[in-house]
Order: sequence, then C-alpha cells, then structure tokens
Amino acid sequence: MHSLNPTPRILLGPGPSTLPPSVLRAMAAPMVGYLDPQLMVYLGEIQEMLRYTFQTANEWTFPLSGTGTAGMEAALANFIEPGDAVLVLVNGYFGARLAEIALRHRAQVDTIEHPWGQVFTPQEVETALERKPYKLLALVHMETSTGTLQPQVAEIASAAHRHGALVLLDTVASLGGAPVAVDAWDLDIVYSGSQKCLSAPPGMAPITISERARRSLETRRTPVDVWYLDLPLIARYWGETHAYHHPPPISSLYGLHESLRLIVEEGLEARFARHRANAERLWEGLEALGMDFFVPQEYRSPTLSTPLVPDGVDEAAVRRRLLEEYDLEIAGGFGPLAGKIWRVGLMGYSSSRANVDLLLTALEGMVKAE
Amino acid sequence: MHSLNPTPRILLGPGPSTLPPSVLRAMAAPMVGYLDPQLMVYLGEIQEMLRYTFQTANEWTFPLSGTGTAGMEAALANFIEPGDAVLVLVNGYFGARLAEIALRHRAQVDTIEHPWGQVFTPQEVETALERKPYKLLALVHMETSTGTLQPQVAEIASAAHRHGALVLLDTVASLGGAPVAVDAWDLDIVYSGSQKCLSAPPGMAPITISERARRSLETRRTPVDVWYLDLPLIARYWGETHAYHHPPPISSLYGLHESLRLIVEEGLEARFARHRANAERLWEGLEALGMDFFVPQEYRSPTLSTPLVPDGVDEAAVRRRLLEEYDLEIAGGFGPLAGKIWRVGLMGYSSSRANVDLLLTALEGMVKAE
Repeated sequence: MHSLNPTPRILLGPGPSTLPPSVLRAMAAPMVGYLDPQLMVYLGEIQEMLRYTFQTANEWTFPLSGTGTAGMEAALANFIEPGDAVLVLVNGYFGARLAEIALRHRAQVDTIEHPWGQVFTPQEVETALERKPYKLLALVHMETSTGTLQPQVAEIASAAHRHGALVLLDTVASLGGAPVAVDAWDLDIVYSGSQKCLSAPPGMAPITISERARRSLETRRTPVDVWYLDLPLIARYWGETHAYHHPPPISSLYGLHESLRLIVEEGLEARFARHRANAERLWEGLEALGMDFFVPQEYRSPTLSTPLVPDGVDEAAVRRRLLEEYDLEIAGGFGPLAGKIWRVGLMGYSSSRANVDLLLTALEGMVKAE
Repeated sequence: MHSLNPTPRILLGPGPSTLPPSVLRAMAAPMVGYLDPQLMVYLGEIQEMLRYTFQTANEWTFPLSGTGTAGMEAALANFIEPGDAVLVLVNGYFGARLAEIALRHRAQVDTIEHPWGQVFTPQEVETALERKPYKLLALVHMETSTGTLQPQVAEIASAAHRHGALVLLDTVASLGGAPVAVDAWDLDIVYSGSQKCLSAPPGMAPITISERARRSLETRRTPVDVWYLDLPLIARYWGETHAYHHPPPISSLYGLHESLRLIVEEGLEARFARHRANAERLWEGLEALGMDFFVPQEYRSPTLSTPLVPDGVDEAAVRRRLLEEYDLEIAGGFGPLAGKIWRVGLMGYSSSRANVDLLLTALEGMVKAE
C-alpha cells in the first residue's frame, strides 16, 4: 500500500476551507496524554480564544469531539426532553436537519417554513411564539444550502426570551467569517464547525452555552439520550477538574489552537472586513461575467456566494474543469437547487483576493466558451 | 497568544500511544474536499486496510467520526430499539459504561457482573442466555480499567448465536495489538479506537458490522435516536454512492491511512508477536523488581499491564517523577483500583524494547528508593 500524497487544492466550496501552513504544521506536533499538564494549558487557551471568537464570556465554551453535525445534535439533545415543544425556522437543508434531529430526540416539533433562499422576520417569529409556548427556538445563521445570512438574530432572540424560549443558533458556516456576537445578541446555545471559516481541521464542533441554558439542564427529569454528547459530562473535562469523559482528538485540537491563534492575531474586525471585501470583489466579478445571484445582496453571506448557473451552461462540467485544470474546488447546489446554482465559499484562509481573481479568470473562459 | 510546542512524551499509559513520525507527517498533508476524487481513493484504501486489521470481509467497515466512545454509542444505539433486551458482561469500567449507554438508548439491560479483574466463561454466559431471550450480547475484549483480556470470545459468540442474540465486542484497547478475528470468531458489531494499538491520532472509531447485524437494521420500527451516528446514513458516504452525511475528519483520516499502512507493512502476526514479546519482557522486569500483578498471567493483556503498587510506595509521586524526569507517561488505577495499580500500556508504536527497558530502569530507582 502506498503512502498518500494528495495534490493541494484551492478550496472554494462550502467547506472544508484550505488549511493555513502553520495549522498543518501544528497537527504534526507530538502526541501527549489527555491529562498531560501541557495539554491542560492548551485546553485553557483554546477556550479563551473560542470565547473571543464567539464574542462571549460563557464558561461553557469548548470544542466537541465531532463535526458541526455533532454540534447540532449536542445542541438539541441536551436541551430537549421527550415531548418538549421546539420551534424550528426552516429555509434550507440545515434548518430541515435541525427539525429532523429534534424529532429523533422526541421533541414535539413545529416549523416556520420559507422557500429556500428567503429569510425570517422577527415579527413572524414573535407571532408563532405568541400562539404556543416553546422550550427552544432553533435557527440557522448562514444556510449553507442557499447562501443566505439571517439578519436581525438579536431581535429574534429577544422575542424568544420574552416568550420563555431558549435560543439555539447554528453558526457552522458563519463563525469566524461574519459577525457572531453571542453575548450581545443574547443567544443561549451556539455551535459551529472547525473546517469552514475557522480554517481548522474538520472534526471538531465549537459550542458555547449561556448561563440561562446551563441552569435549564439542572432541572432535566431524564438523562441526555446521547452519552457521547452529554454536555455536563464533557464540561467536567474542560473545566478545572479535568475529569475523564472521552479522549479528545488531540492532534486536531493542536490544529484548532493554531487556527484560533491566527484569528486572534488578525483580529475579528479585520477578518470580517477581509471576508466582506473578497466577497464583494467576487460578486462584482461574477456580475461582470453576466451572472445573477440566487440571494438578494441584502441577505447574501460574505462566506458563501450562490451565483445562478447561466442558461445553457453545464454546471457539473464547469466544476470538473475547475478541479482538473486549476485544482480549484467549488460546489453545486443540491435538493431543489441541484443544477441551478454554484456554491462558492470564501471561508477563512480560502478568502483571499488571489483566489477570487483566479476563480474569475478561470470561469470567464468556461462560462463564455459554452 | 503563543504557538503550541509540546515536549515529546513516551506514552506508556492506556492511550493515546505515541504516534509514528510518518503518521504525524501524513496529517500535515493538504486539505481536500470531502468528495474530492483523491479522497475517495483514500477512503477505499482505509476500508481495505481496516478489513485486514479486523480480519473481516464485512462491507460495512469504516471509521466513525468520533472517539472509541462514539464507536460504543453507535454500536449500541443502532441495534437497540426501546425495550429491547440486552445482556452486558461487566468486569470493569468499560463494561459498566456499555450498560449505562444501553440504558440511555432505552434498552432493558441485564448484566452478568464479576469483580474487576476477572473474566467470563462461555458456560455462565450460555446459562444466562438460556433463561431469557436477548437481542444483543455486549462485552469488552480488553478491559482498560483492569488489564484483562477476555478469552474464548468465539465460544461466547457461538453461545449467543445459538440463542438468537447479536454479539457486540469492544476492541478499543486490543485491535492492532492482540488477535481480533471478527469473521473467524463470528462477531456482529465490533469497534475500536484509533489512538491505542493502531497508533493513529485520537478521534476516530473504526467499526465493522456483519451481514447478520446489517439485516437486523432493515426491520427497525423506529429511527436510530442519534442522527450523527446513524450507521446506514454513514455507510452511504463510505459506500459507492459517497452520499453526503457529514464531513469526515480528513486530516485525521490521513493519519489513520498511514497508521494502517504501517500495520499492513509489519503484518498482523509480527505485530502481535512484538506486543507479546515486549509485554513479557516488561512482566519479567517488574517481577525482578519484586512486583506482583493484578491480573493472572493467563488473562493478562499484551497491550496493557497492571502491576500492583508495592506497599509503602506513593504511586502518584512515581508517576509524577516519570513524567518530570523522563517525559514518560504511565497511568494509575481508578475507581476501586485507585492507588492500588499502575496501568502500563505497550500499544502500537509505543510497544518497543527501548521503552520497556527505559521504564524498568527508571522504576528501579524510584520503587527501591521509597
């Protein structure tokens, strides 16, 4: 059996993003035990840098040992008991997945559904909350299936709290690329994925839990039905006692430590400005190629753009040529958007002027030539 | 914030084991997309090498995106529906955890319990199976809390099948270090962890599922209650369709690919002989220092040894000195064995004559000096 030796790619899909060289090097640091005093220092630093990134002072702020999907499942499973009423906002695939996973954990699930690509108003959410009490309101910040960035999250959270509901926000595809202000927006349960705008290796799900949400766990009548994702047990390992729950993915944590260090070094404001500037450059360039967008500019995410495939263009053939001729990856749409959009991520380290210009140059030949 | 730079350790605890240099280098390979044609080749190779390591032809053989604990939870959650009767053999912490997680998934759980350090006979298991029908029999091959290696697993599996039960075996701390013959022993659900005798980075749980167990999933009346660990959905990504479920931990998979390549290169028989020879060298050396063992030699695992702490010796102080003076990690006991045993792992790359001799030399001064 041969050793692997992958050709580097320019990753402009919906994740993973390209890993910075120093993150790749960090993962090659020597393994240590899961209670090694050296690791305990790194765990504390990771938590401190995650709090900066989430813009929160929440004590329970740490990466779970699984992908963003594990973050979603932990966020739901810990705060749902059988029969609890949960309201989920669905305007794309990941909102629908929130609803599906809430059902698996035996919630009584209601949804507000909008066509893919639209967003929600605080008013309509408040109207639904007035009709019925909910334990939890769950929504997606940046819908990776469509490229929408939900505005007015703070206003939606405020409406939920007026009606006694906890607020869960999925920031898998926004954290580190677009503003996410957990404390200022007064959010309760917020998780992300490591491999998108954080540009850390895939396989970790940073999560942060408000005091309000933590207290709600103290009155659970039943144990959390997933032992692996039981937050109070996991928090004991990340807290001062460092009590064993399961061995964390140490090499991946090394990579996350370095990716967060790069975020602190760049600064959140500069990072958001970079994502914004590169996204706008991409939008202008695609417009100059005669392309339209699935999402109105007002709700468009700086982390993922979804241009419409021009009439007569074979979108899969374009993606194949980009990969084969340029080692450059973008994604297509799926579900109702299959064949209709491309999904172009400018996330974390992948968000650079050079990447934007290369993609535009490459696309120019392909879209016009068809 | 500084970059991390951990001092290398010689890892002779119950896991993680030291990572080979080529595994560390493999993780630093460039990130690619989760549907990249290059990655698809590596996924196939990982499955092929895992089948070799598990000694199975099972189609469903792949690593889950979580630690060995996630493997345990997947192994139980997928094959349990509410009210299903499960028999768990408990002779240590991890057997007890099997029972606890089975309860979380609403099984009706019975146990056969033995004091920590003892093993089970096929006869007593058959007697329990005769009293009552069970959907599933679950047991631990190598009990990491005590150092026992359960013998006669094939005979126990045969008894279970005679009574219509599926057989689940936890090989977290044995796979790659002691013989595990999934097909020859006729096992149904077998999982492991990446960070012990495989010497891959922590955070993956290789699992293999027999045809008999797969078929049993087709008649489930309820969905698996953990979406993240839903085996049929995960199998679609690892199968020929490569349908999206969640992005796998790609850097960690690179490391696993290389660690499996090293296993294939060494050969299973040679690898087991190495683990056996180094364990016996350790046992002889510890006996020469006047030390006894918690587990009789007959049931002692070549992957983890559990010498009794000599009278008058401060076991935590010895561990602290080994770490500070030798950068060498061993573990203590826990639960009923706290303060009474050490746990010395010789797992994967950590199982070397040099490590054994260094530990014996270091211990000699510390145990005699106290």
